Amino acid sequence: MKNAVSRHTGYAPLPRWRVIAGKTIALGPGKADLLEGILDTGSIGQAAERLGMSYMRAWSLVQTMNSCFSSPLVQTQRGGPEHGGATITGTGKKVLKLYRLMETASIQASQPAWSKLKPLLR
Amino acid sequence: MKNAVSRHTGYAPLPRWRVIAGKTIALGPGKADLLEGILDTGSIGQAAERLGMSYMRAWSLVQTMNSCFSSPLVQTQRGGPEHGGATITGTGKKVLKLYRLMETASIQASQPAWSKLKPLLR
Repeated sequence: MKNAVSRHTGYAPLPRWRVIAGKTIALGPGKADLLEGILDTGSIGQAAERLGMSYMRAWSLVQTMNSCFSSPLVQTQRGGPEHGGATITGTGKKVLKLYRLMETASIQASQPAWSKLKPLLR
Repeated sequence: MKNAVSRHTGYAPLPRWRVIAGKTIALGPGKADLLEGILDTGSIGQAAERLGMSYMRAWSLVQTMNSCFSSPLVQTQRGGPEHGGATITGTGKKVLKLYRLMETASIQASQPAWSKLKPLLR
């Protein structure tokens, strides 16, 4: 007997929130992970490496984030982009925390619909 | 005086839910819009055109969706992929409705965090 419920244990729903204005993505899953990586490592380069992202890509994402918020989320130390460390500002920590809250709140809220969708998967 | 609150009216948060298993995306924003387009137009080609997507891309997304669910979401009429129309099955309608429910439930649930994040945007 076909039992659809037992076969789709591998599927998971992921909310990939984007905060956008026109074509500009102020914040999204990649930028949030990057903030978290910089918070953990104190370095854009190490955070980029951890995410399998080029340094230039990470630097560009940081520039976009910093320009979209009223005050910078990431502060780079003296020595320019290639040198020194980077720190997450108070605003940056707040933004990261709120983004993660949006994720957890929406995962919880989507459960009723997800519990009906899941059994339809192979 | 700088008033951050009045300057960021353009930003909106979008939950872009993905239902994934490993590298396979069973459902996401593009696939949901495609289902909706086929439901409206009765045609993969017209739905693709509406979304600015190639026919081949749309066809490939339909194949992925159909293979990820226990029963097909889209049924194509006799005449092969290039001809005839396409209809959304009962399962397809249910899946689309549940995906939209996940979106609306999570938008609502994210409001408390979003209302704190929004004033930090430029």
